[in-house]
Amino acid sequence: MKIGIFDSGVGGLTVLKAIRERYKNVDIVYLGDTARVPYGIRSKDTVIRYSLECANFLKEKGIDLLVVACNTASAYALERLKTEMNFPVFGVIEPGVREALRRTKNKRIGIIGTSATVKSGVYQELLKKEGAYVLSKACPLFVPLVEEGLIGGDITRKVIEHYLKDFKGKIDTLILGCTHYPLLKKEIENFLKDVEVIDSSEAISKSLSGYVKDEGNSTLELFFTDFSQNLDFLVNLILGKTLDIKLAEGVFAI
Amino acid sequence: MKIGIFDSGVGGLTVLKAIRERYKNVDIVYLGDTARVPYGIRSKDTVIRYSLECANFLKEKGIDLLVVACNTASAYALERLKTEMNFPVFGVIEPGVREALRRTKNKRIGIIGTSATVKSGVYQELLKKEGAYVLSKACPLFVPLVEEGLIGGDITRKVIEHYLKDFKGKIDTLILGCTHYPLLKKEIENFLKDVEVIDSSEAISKSLSGYVKDEGNSTLELFFTDFSQNLDFLVNLILGKTLDIKLAEGVFAI
Repeated sequence: MKIGIFDSGVGGLTVLKAIRERYKNVDIVYLGDTARVPYGIRSKDTVIRYSLECANFLKEKGIDLLVVACNTASAYALERLKTEMNFPVFGVIEPGVREALRRTKNKRIGIIGTSATVKSGVYQELLKKEGAYVLSKACPLFVPLVEEGLIGGDITRKVIEHYLKDFKGKIDTLILGCTHYPLLKKEIENFLKDVEVIDSSEAISKSLSGYVKDEGNSTLELFFTDFSQNLDFLVNLILGKTLDIKLAEGVFAI
Repeated sequence: MKIGIFDSGVGGLTVLKAIRERYKNVDIVYLGDTARVPYGIRSKDTVIRYSLECANFLKEKGIDLLVVACNTASAYALERLKTEMNFPVFGVIEPGVREALRRTKNKRIGIIGTSATVKSGVYQELLKKEGAYVLSKACPLFVPLVEEGLIGGDITRKVIEHYLKDFKGKIDTLILGCTHYPLLKKEIENFLKDVEVIDSSEAISKSLSGYVKDEGNSTLELFFTDFSQNLDFLVNLILGKTLDIKLAEGVFAI
Protein backbone atom coordinates (compact mmCIF):
# COMPACT_ATOMS: atom_id res chain seq x y z
CA MET A 1 0.00 0.00 0.00
CA LYS A 2 1.26 3.45 -0.94
CA ILE A 3 0.38 6.47 1.20
CA GLY A 4 0.74 9.98 -0.20
CA ILE A 5 1.26 12.89 2.17
CA PHE A 6 1.46 16.52 1.19
CA ASP A 7 2.13 19.69 3.10
CA SER A 8 2.89 23.29 2.25
CA GLY A 9 6.48 22.64 3.26
CA VAL A 10 8.47 20.66 5.79
CA GLY A 11 6.04 20.79 8.72
CA GLY A 12 4.13 17.78 7.44
CA LEU A 13 7.18 15.64 8.09
CA THR A 14 5.91 15.48 11.70
CA VAL A 15 2.87 13.67 10.25
CA LEU A 16 5.06 11.44 8.09
CA LYS A 17 7.10 10.53 11.17
CA ALA A 18 4.00 9.60 13.20
CA ILE A 19 2.60 7.53 10.31
CA ARG A 20 5.89 5.70 9.78
CA GLU A 21 6.16 4.91 13.49
CA ARG A 22 2.75 3.25 13.37
CA TYR A 23 2.95 1.60 9.93
CA LYS A 24 6.39 0.17 9.29
CA ASN A 25 5.76 -1.56 5.95
CA VAL A 26 3.69 0.79 3.84
CA ASP A 27 5.31 2.78 1.04
CA ILE A 28 5.20 6.53 1.56
CA VAL A 29 5.55 9.43 -0.89
CA TYR A 30 5.81 12.88 0.64
CA LEU A 31 5.47 16.19 -1.18
CA GLY A 32 6.39 19.51 0.43
CA ASP A 33 5.44 22.60 -1.57
CA THR A 34 8.50 24.59 -0.49
CA ALA A 35 8.30 26.77 -3.62
CA ARG A 36 5.09 28.30 -2.31
CA VAL A 37 5.19 27.80 1.45
CA PRO A 38 3.56 29.16 3.64
CA TYR A 39 -0.06 28.46 2.75
CA GLY A 40 -1.27 29.95 6.03
CA ILE A 41 -1.14 33.56 4.82
CA ARG A 42 -2.82 32.94 1.45
CA SER A 43 -6.39 33.26 0.26
CA LYS A 44 -8.83 30.35 0.12
CA ASP A 45 -8.82 30.18 -3.70
CA THR A 46 -5.05 30.06 -3.86
CA VAL A 47 -4.83 27.36 -1.17
CA ILE A 48 -7.34 25.23 -3.09
CA ARG A 49 -5.44 25.64 -6.38
CA TYR A 50 -2.11 24.76 -4.78
CA SER A 51 -3.63 21.77 -2.95
CA LEU A 52 -5.11 20.31 -6.14
CA GLU A 53 -1.74 20.53 -7.84
CA CYS A 54 -0.05 18.75 -4.95
CA ALA A 55 -2.69 16.00 -4.89
CA ASN A 56 -2.38 15.49 -8.65
CA PHE A 57 1.38 15.13 -8.34
CA LEU A 58 0.95 12.37 -5.76
CA LYS A 59 -1.85 10.77 -7.78
CA GLU A 60 0.64 10.31 -10.62
CA LYS A 61 2.89 8.48 -8.16
CA GLY A 62 0.17 5.84 -7.82
CA ILE A 63 -0.89 6.39 -4.21
CA ASP A 64 -3.79 4.47 -2.65
CA LEU A 65 -4.61 7.00 0.04
CA LEU A 66 -3.85 10.69 0.58
CA VAL A 67 -3.12 12.47 3.83
CA VAL A 68 -3.34 16.26 3.71
CA ALA A 69 -0.82 17.07 6.42
CA CYS A 70 -1.25 20.82 6.13
CA ASN A 71 -3.95 22.25 8.39
CA THR A 72 -4.58 25.22 6.09
CA ALA A 73 -5.06 22.91 3.09
CA SER A 74 -7.25 20.62 5.21
CA ALA A 75 -9.37 23.60 6.26
CA TYR A 76 -9.90 25.02 2.78
CA ALA A 77 -9.40 22.23 0.25
CA LEU A 78 -10.40 18.90 1.82
CA GLU A 79 -13.91 18.72 0.42
CA ARG A 80 -12.71 19.62 -3.06
CA LEU A 81 -9.93 17.02 -2.88
CA LYS A 82 -12.37 14.33 -1.72
CA THR A 83 -14.58 15.10 -4.73
CA GLU A 84 -11.80 15.18 -7.30
CA MET A 85 -9.57 12.29 -6.22
CA ASN A 86 -10.39 8.62 -6.84
CA PHE A 87 -8.83 7.42 -3.57
CA PRO A 88 -9.61 8.19 0.09
CA VAL A 89 -8.43 11.59 1.30
CA PHE A 90 -7.85 12.44 4.96
CA GLY A 91 -7.17 15.79 6.57
CA VAL A 92 -5.62 16.54 9.94
CA ILE A 93 -8.48 18.56 11.39
CA GLU A 94 -11.12 15.93 12.20
CA PRO A 95 -8.67 13.54 13.90
CA GLY A 96 -7.36 16.41 16.05
CA VAL A 97 -10.87 17.44 17.00
CA ARG A 98 -11.93 13.87 17.89
CA GLU A 99 -8.80 13.38 20.01
CA ALA A 100 -9.39 16.68 21.83
CA LEU A 101 -12.99 15.73 22.60
CA ARG A 102 -11.82 12.35 23.95
CA ARG A 103 -9.26 13.97 26.23
CA THR A 104 -11.03 17.09 27.54
CA LYS A 105 -12.78 16.92 30.89
CA ASN A 106 -14.55 20.27 30.92
CA LYS A 107 -15.06 20.71 27.15
CA ARG A 108 -13.11 23.97 27.18
CA ILE A 109 -10.79 23.61 24.21
CA GLY A 110 -8.26 25.92 22.59
CA ILE A 111 -7.17 25.83 18.97
CA ILE A 112 -4.11 27.55 17.52
CA GLY A 113 -2.93 27.65 13.90
CA THR A 114 -2.03 29.90 10.99
CA SER A 115 -4.13 32.96 10.13
CA ALA A 116 -5.85 31.09 7.31
CA THR A 117 -6.65 28.01 9.42
CA VAL A 118 -8.08 30.01 12.31
CA LYS A 119 -9.98 32.35 9.99
CA SER A 120 -11.54 29.39 8.15
CA GLY A 121 -13.44 28.54 11.35
CA VAL A 122 -13.40 24.82 10.52
CA TYR A 123 -11.95 23.71 13.89
CA GLN A 124 -14.22 26.03 15.83
CA GLU A 125 -17.32 24.79 14.00
CA LEU A 126 -16.57 21.10 14.53
CA LEU A 127 -15.83 21.65 18.23
CA LYS A 128 -18.87 23.83 18.88
CA LYS A 129 -21.11 21.26 17.19
CA GLU A 130 -20.07 18.89 19.99
CA GLY A 131 -20.93 21.45 22.63
CA ALA A 132 -17.41 22.64 23.39
CA TYR A 133 -16.47 26.14 24.50
CA VAL A 134 -13.72 27.20 22.08
CA LEU A 135 -10.90 29.73 22.27
CA SER A 136 -8.89 30.26 19.09
CA LYS A 137 -5.79 32.23 18.19
CA ALA A 138 -3.70 32.64 15.04
CA CYS A 139 0.02 32.39 15.83
CA PRO A 140 1.83 33.49 12.63
CA LEU A 141 5.26 33.70 14.27
CA PHE A 142 5.37 30.05 15.35
CA VAL A 143 6.20 28.71 11.87
CA PRO A 144 9.13 31.09 11.23
CA LEU A 145 10.40 30.41 14.77
CA VAL A 146 10.49 26.67 14.11
CA GLU A 147 12.02 27.18 10.65
CA GLU A 148 14.77 29.22 12.34
CA GLY A 149 15.37 26.27 14.66
CA LEU A 150 14.27 28.39 17.64
CA ILE A 151 12.27 25.70 19.40
CA GLY A 152 13.31 26.75 22.88
CA GLY A 153 14.86 29.73 24.59
CA ASP A 154 13.95 33.24 25.57
CA ILE A 155 12.45 34.53 22.30
CA THR A 156 10.35 31.40 21.83
CA ARG A 157 8.99 31.65 25.38
CA LYS A 158 8.13 35.35 24.89
CA VAL A 159 6.30 34.60 21.64
CA ILE A 160 4.39 31.72 23.26
CA GLU A 161 3.39 34.03 26.12
CA HIS A 162 2.36 36.71 23.59
CA TYR A 163 -0.07 34.39 21.83
CA LEU A 164 -1.26 32.12 24.63
CA LYS A 165 -1.55 34.34 27.70
CA ASP A 166 -5.34 34.63 27.25
CA PHE A 167 -5.68 30.83 27.24
CA LYS A 168 -4.21 30.39 30.72
CA GLY A 169 -6.71 28.89 33.14
CA LYS A 170 -9.48 29.02 30.53
CA ILE A 171 -9.06 25.68 28.74
CA ASP A 172 -8.05 22.12 29.68
CA THR A 173 -7.12 20.99 26.14
CA LEU A 174 -5.25 22.69 23.30
CA ILE A 175 -5.13 21.52 19.68
CA LEU A 176 -1.92 22.29 17.79
CA GLY A 177 -3.57 23.13 14.49
CA CYS A 178 -0.39 23.40 12.42
CA THR A 179 2.16 20.73 11.58
CA HIS A 180 5.05 22.91 12.69
CA TYR A 181 3.74 23.35 16.20
CA PRO A 182 4.59 19.90 17.62
CA LEU A 183 8.18 21.12 17.73
CA LEU A 184 7.07 23.79 20.23
CA LYS A 185 4.95 21.34 22.24
CA LYS A 186 7.20 21.17 25.29
CA GLU A 187 7.53 24.93 25.66
CA ILE A 188 3.77 25.35 25.15
CA GLU A 189 3.08 22.71 27.85
CA ASN A 190 5.53 24.44 30.17
CA PHE A 191 3.76 27.75 29.70
CA LEU A 192 0.14 26.58 29.92
CA LYS A 193 0.62 23.93 32.65
CA ASP A 194 -1.99 21.22 33.27
CA VAL A 195 -3.34 21.44 29.75
CA GLU A 196 -3.61 18.46 27.41
CA VAL A 197 -1.79 19.42 24.22
CA ILE A 198 -3.07 17.57 21.15
CA ASP A 199 -0.58 16.91 18.39
CA SER A 200 -2.50 16.42 15.13
CA SER A 201 0.25 14.26 13.67
CA GLU A 202 -0.35 11.60 16.32
CA ALA A 203 -4.10 11.96 15.96
CA ILE A 204 -4.11 11.48 12.18
CA SER A 205 -1.83 8.46 12.24
CA LYS A 206 -4.05 6.81 14.84
CA SER A 207 -7.22 7.59 12.90
CA LEU A 208 -5.95 5.88 9.74
CA SER A 209 -5.98 2.46 11.41
CA GLY A 210 -9.20 1.33 9.75
CA TYR A 211 -7.95 2.22 6.28
CA VAL A 212 -4.30 1.25 6.20
CA LYS A 213 -3.06 -2.25 5.49
CA ASP A 214 0.51 -2.23 6.75
CA GLU A 215 1.89 -3.96 3.68
CA GLY A 216 4.56 -2.83 1.26
CA ASN A 217 8.30 -2.40 0.92
CA SER A 218 8.82 0.35 3.54
CA THR A 219 10.00 2.75 0.85
CA LEU A 220 10.06 6.47 1.48
CA GLU A 221 10.29 9.12 -1.22
CA LEU A 222 10.60 12.80 -0.35
CA PHE A 223 9.73 15.42 -2.98
CA PHE A 224 9.87 19.17 -2.61
CA THR A 225 8.94 21.85 -5.14
CA ASP A 226 12.01 23.93 -4.27
CA PHE A 227 15.38 23.23 -2.72
CA SER A 228 14.74 26.09 -0.34
CA GLN A 229 17.50 27.67 1.75
CA ASN A 230 17.31 25.58 4.92
CA LEU A 231 15.67 22.42 3.60
CA ASP A 232 18.31 19.90 4.69
CA PHE A 233 18.52 21.49 8.14
CA LEU A 234 14.75 21.26 8.64
CA VAL A 235 14.42 17.70 7.35
CA ASN A 236 17.12 16.75 9.80
CA LEU A 237 15.53 18.75 12.64
CA ILE A 238 12.20 16.96 12.26
CA LEU A 239 13.17 13.44 11.13
CA GLY A 240 16.44 13.31 13.03
CA LYS A 241 18.36 12.23 9.96
CA THR A 242 19.34 13.40 6.48
CA LEU A 243 17.52 11.74 3.60
CA ASP A 244 17.57 11.87 -0.17
CA ILE A 245 15.43 14.70 -1.45
CA LYS A 246 14.04 14.99 -4.97
CA LEU A 247 12.77 18.05 -6.81
CA ALA A 248 9.11 17.69 -7.76
CA GLU A 249 8.52 18.59 -11.37
CA GLY A 250 5.82 18.18 -13.96
CA VAL A 251 2.44 18.81 -12.43
CA PHE A 252 3.17 22.28 -11.13
CA ALA A 253 2.49 25.26 -13.26
CA ILE A 254 4.93 27.38 -11.24
CA MET B 1 6.78 58.17 -17.76
CA LYS B 2 5.65 54.90 -16.24
CA ILE B 3 7.73 53.20 -13.55
CA GLY B 4 7.21 49.53 -12.73
CA ILE B 5 8.10 48.22 -9.29
CA PHE B 6 7.92 44.61 -8.19
CA ASP B 7 8.54 42.89 -4.92
CA SER B 8 7.93 39.45 -3.46
CA GLY B 9 5.07 40.94 -1.46
CA VAL B 10 4.16 44.11 0.35
CA GLY B 11 7.64 45.14 1.60
CA GLY B 12 8.43 46.88 -1.67
CA LEU B 13 5.74 49.41 -0.88
CA THR B 14 8.42 51.15 1.22
CA VAL B 15 10.30 51.64 -2.09
CA LEU B 16 7.13 52.79 -3.85
CA LYS B 17 6.55 55.33 -1.06
CA ALA B 18 10.07 56.74 -1.34
CA ILE B 19 9.82 56.96 -5.15
CA ARG B 20 6.43 58.70 -5.03
CA GLU B 21 7.72 61.21 -2.46
CA ARG B 22 10.51 62.18 -4.84
CA TYR B 23 8.64 61.94 -8.17
CA LYS B 24 5.12 63.31 -7.86
CA ASN B 25 4.04 63.10 -11.51
CA VAL B 26 5.24 59.78 -12.87
CA ASP B 27 2.82 56.91 -13.32
CA ILE B 28 3.59 53.90 -11.15
CA VAL B 29 2.54 50.25 -11.45
CA TYR B 30 3.38 48.03 -8.48
CA LEU B 31 3.28 44.25 -8.40
CA GLY B 32 3.54 42.25 -5.17
CA ASP B 33 3.90 38.48 -5.59
CA THR B 34 1.87 37.67 -2.49
CA ALA B 35 0.95 34.24 -3.89
CA ARG B 36 4.58 33.15 -3.52
CA VAL B 37 6.04 35.42 -0.86
CA PRO B 38 8.61 35.14 0.74
CA TYR B 39 11.39 34.86 -1.86
CA GLY B 40 14.07 35.02 0.84
CA ILE B 41 13.86 31.33 1.71
CA ARG B 42 13.81 30.02 -1.88
CA SER B 43 16.52 28.72 -4.18
CA LYS B 44 18.28 30.89 -6.76
CA ASP B 45 16.59 29.16 -9.72
CA THR B 46 13.15 29.66 -8.26
CA VAL B 47 13.80 33.32 -7.45
CA ILE B 48 14.95 33.93 -11.04
CA ARG B 49 11.87 32.20 -12.50
CA TYR B 50 9.49 34.15 -10.26
CA SER B 51 11.30 37.45 -11.00
CA LEU B 52 11.05 36.99 -14.77
CA GLU B 53 7.31 36.38 -14.49
CA CYS B 54 6.86 39.54 -12.40
CA ALA B 55 8.92 41.62 -14.86
CA ASN B 56 6.94 40.29 -17.82
CA PHE B 57 3.69 41.18 -16.12
CA LEU B 58 4.87 44.79 -15.70
CA LYS B 59 6.29 44.87 -19.24
CA GLU B 60 2.78 44.18 -20.51
CA LYS B 61 1.61 47.23 -18.57
CA GLY B 62 3.88 49.35 -20.75
CA ILE B 63 6.49 50.48 -18.23
CA ASP B 64 9.54 52.56 -19.25
CA LEU B 65 11.73 51.55 -16.34
CA LEU B 66 11.73 48.72 -13.80
CA VAL B 67 12.70 48.84 -10.14
CA VAL B 68 13.29 45.48 -8.49
CA ALA B 69 12.31 46.42 -4.95
CA CYS B 70 13.02 42.96 -3.53
CA ASN B 71 16.57 42.49 -2.29
CA THR B 72 16.48 38.74 -2.87
CA ALA B 73 15.33 39.21 -6.48
CA SER B 74 17.95 41.96 -6.93
CA ALA B 75 20.64 39.63 -5.63
CA TYR B 76 19.76 36.65 -7.79
CA ALA B 77 17.88 37.90 -10.85
CA LEU B 78 19.07 41.41 -11.71
CA GLU B 79 21.57 40.46 -14.41
CA ARG B 80 19.08 38.14 -16.06
CA LEU B 81 16.37 40.83 -15.99
CA LYS B 82 18.74 43.41 -17.47
CA THR B 83 19.49 41.02 -20.34
CA GLU B 84 15.91 40.03 -21.05
CA MET B 85 14.04 43.35 -20.68
CA ASN B 86 14.07 46.11 -23.28
CA PHE B 87 13.98 48.95 -20.71
CA PRO B 88 16.35 49.94 -17.88
CA VAL B 89 16.23 47.72 -14.80
CA PHE B 90 17.42 48.84 -11.36
CA GLY B 91 17.90 46.81 -8.22
CA VAL B 92 18.07 47.98 -4.62
CA ILE B 93 21.49 46.59 -3.79
CA GLU B 94 23.89 48.93 -5.59
CA PRO B 95 22.18 52.14 -4.41
CA GLY B 96 22.27 50.87 -0.82
CA VAL B 97 25.95 49.99 -1.12
CA ARG B 98 26.84 53.39 -2.62
CA GLU B 99 24.92 55.23 0.10
CA ALA B 100 26.63 53.19 2.82
CA LEU B 101 30.07 53.93 1.37
CA ARG B 102 29.19 57.66 1.28
CA ARG B 103 28.11 57.67 4.91
CA THR B 104 30.62 55.37 6.63
CA LYS B 105 33.61 56.95 8.35
CA ASN B 106 35.61 53.85 9.23
CA LYS B 107 34.49 51.57 6.36
CA ARG B 108 33.13 49.01 8.82
CA ILE B 109 29.74 48.16 7.39
CA GLY B 110 27.04 45.69 8.39
CA ILE B 111 24.50 44.13 6.06
CA ILE B 112 21.33 42.31 7.12
CA GLY B 113 18.72 40.61 4.95
CA THR B 114 16.90 37.37 4.23
CA SER B 115 18.76 34.05 4.16
CA ALA B 116 18.86 34.09 0.35
CA THR B 117 20.13 37.67 0.10
CA VAL B 118 22.90 37.16 2.64
CA LYS B 119 23.84 33.78 1.19
CA SER B 120 24.10 35.27 -2.32
CA GLY B 121 27.07 37.33 -1.12
CA VAL B 122 26.24 40.16 -3.53
CA TYR B 123 26.28 42.92 -0.90
CA GLN B 124 29.44 41.59 0.73
CA GLU B 125 31.27 41.37 -2.61
CA LEU B 126 30.40 44.94 -3.68
CA LEU B 127 31.40 46.35 -0.29
CA LYS B 128 34.65 44.40 -0.06
CA LYS B 129 35.61 45.53 -3.56
CA GLU B 130 35.62 49.05 -2.12
CA GLY B 131 37.84 48.01 0.75
CA ALA B 132 35.17 47.78 3.42
CA TYR B 133 35.23 45.41 6.39
CA VAL B 134 31.85 43.64 6.25
CA LEU B 135 29.72 41.89 8.85
CA SER B 136 26.60 40.13 7.55
CA LYS B 137 23.67 38.37 9.18
CA ALA B 138 20.49 36.75 7.90
CA CYS B 139 17.48 37.80 10.01
CA PRO B 140 14.61 35.52 8.89
CA LEU B 141 12.28 36.55 11.73
CA PHE B 142 12.22 40.25 10.84
CA VAL B 143 9.81 39.82 7.91
CA PRO B 144 7.20 37.82 9.84
CA LEU B 145 7.53 40.26 12.75
CA VAL B 146 6.71 43.18 10.48
CA GLU B 147 3.91 41.25 8.78
CA GLU B 148 2.42 40.65 12.24
CA GLY B 149 2.55 44.39 12.84
CA LEU B 150 5.08 43.86 15.65
CA ILE B 151 7.32 46.80 14.79
CA GLY B 152 8.01 47.71 18.40
CA GLY B 153 7.73 46.13 21.83
CA ASP B 154 9.39 43.46 23.86
CA ILE B 155 9.47 40.58 21.36
CA THR B 156 10.77 42.80 18.57
CA ARG B 157 13.55 44.16 20.80
CA LYS B 158 14.53 40.63 21.84
CA VAL B 159 14.68 39.46 18.21
CA ILE B 160 16.74 42.51 17.21
CA GLU B 161 19.15 41.76 20.06
CA HIS B 162 19.28 38.10 19.01
CA TYR B 163 20.42 38.95 15.48
CA LEU B 164 22.42 42.14 15.99
CA LYS B 165 24.29 41.65 19.26
CA ASP B 166 27.49 40.73 17.41
CA PHE B 167 27.35 43.99 15.41
CA LYS B 168 27.49 46.23 18.50
CA GLY B 169 30.60 48.41 18.51
CA LYS B 170 31.95 46.68 15.40
CA ILE B 171 30.39 48.78 12.59
CA ASP B 172 29.48 52.43 12.02
CA THR B 173 27.00 51.81 9.18
CA LEU B 174 24.30 49.18 8.66
CA ILE B 175 22.47 48.45 5.41
CA LEU B 176 18.88 47.27 5.74
CA GLY B 177 19.01 44.73 2.93
CA CYS B 178 15.30 43.89 2.87
CA THR B 179 12.35 46.11 2.05
CA HIS B 180 10.49 45.11 5.21
CA TYR B 181 13.25 46.26 7.51
CA PRO B 182 12.71 50.05 7.28
CA LEU B 183 9.68 49.48 9.52
CA LEU B 184 12.08 48.26 12.22
CA LYS B 185 14.56 51.09 11.64
CA LYS B 186 13.85 52.99 14.86
CA GLU B 187 14.19 49.94 17.09
CA ILE B 188 17.36 48.88 15.29
CA GLU B 189 18.84 52.36 15.75
CA ASN B 190 17.86 52.32 19.42
CA PHE B 191 19.62 49.00 19.90
CA LEU B 192 22.82 49.67 17.93
CA LYS B 193 23.28 53.33 18.92
CA ASP B 194 25.56 55.69 16.93
CA VAL B 195 25.25 53.60 13.78
CA GLU B 196 24.11 55.03 10.45
CA VAL B 197 21.22 52.87 9.27
CA ILE B 198 20.81 52.85 5.49
CA ASP B 199 17.31 52.38 4.17
CA SER B 200 17.53 50.97 0.61
CA SER B 201 14.19 52.47 -0.33
CA GLU B 202 15.54 56.00 0.10
CA ALA B 203 18.80 55.07 -1.63
CA ILE B 204 17.11 53.62 -4.71
CA SER B 205 14.73 56.55 -5.17
CA LYS B 206 17.67 58.98 -4.94
CA SER B 207 19.75 56.98 -7.42
CA LEU B 208 17.02 57.07 -10.10
CA SER B 209 17.36 60.84 -10.52
CA GLY B 210 19.39 60.62 -13.73
CA TYR B 211 16.87 58.31 -15.38
CA VAL B 212 13.46 59.56 -14.33
CA LYS B 213 11.61 62.42 -16.01
CA ASP B 214 9.01 63.44 -13.51
CA GLU B 215 6.22 63.63 -16.07
CA GLY B 216 2.93 61.79 -16.21
CA ASN B 217 -0.51 61.70 -14.62
CA SER B 218 0.49 60.66 -11.08
CA THR B 219 -1.44 57.42 -11.42
CA LEU B 220 -0.79 54.51 -9.11
CA GLU B 221 -1.86 50.93 -9.76
CA LEU B 222 -1.34 48.19 -7.18
CA PHE B 223 -1.38 44.57 -8.29
CA PHE B 224 -0.91 41.49 -6.12
CA THR B 225 -0.86 37.84 -7.14
CA ASP B 226 -2.98 36.84 -4.13
CA PHE B 227 -5.40 38.60 -1.82
CA SER B 228 -3.45 37.21 1.10
CA GLN B 229 -4.83 37.18 4.64
CA ASN B 230 -3.52 40.50 5.95
CA LEU B 231 -3.00 42.40 2.69
CA ASP B 232 -5.17 45.43 3.44
CA PHE B 233 -3.67 45.75 6.91
CA LEU B 234 -0.12 45.73 5.55
CA VAL B 235 -0.81 48.15 2.69
CA ASN B 236 -2.26 50.50 5.27
CA LEU B 237 0.63 49.95 7.70
CA ILE B 238 3.23 50.90 5.08
CA LEU B 239 1.45 53.52 2.94
CA GLY B 240 -0.65 54.97 5.74
CA LYS B 241 -3.83 54.63 3.72
CA THR B 242 -6.09 52.07 2.09
CA LEU B 243 -5.90 51.87 -1.69
CA ASP B 244 -7.59 49.94 -4.47
CA ILE B 245 -5.88 46.61 -5.00
CA LYS B 246 -6.15 44.49 -8.13
CA LEU B 247 -5.47 40.81 -8.60
CA ALA B 248 -2.65 40.18 -11.09
CA GLU B 249 -3.62 37.59 -13.62
CA GLY B 250 -2.41 36.36 -16.98
CA VAL B 251 1.35 36.15 -16.97
CA PHE B 252 1.66 33.86 -13.98
CA ALA B 253 1.68 30.18 -14.42
CA ILE B 254 0.66 29.60 -10.83
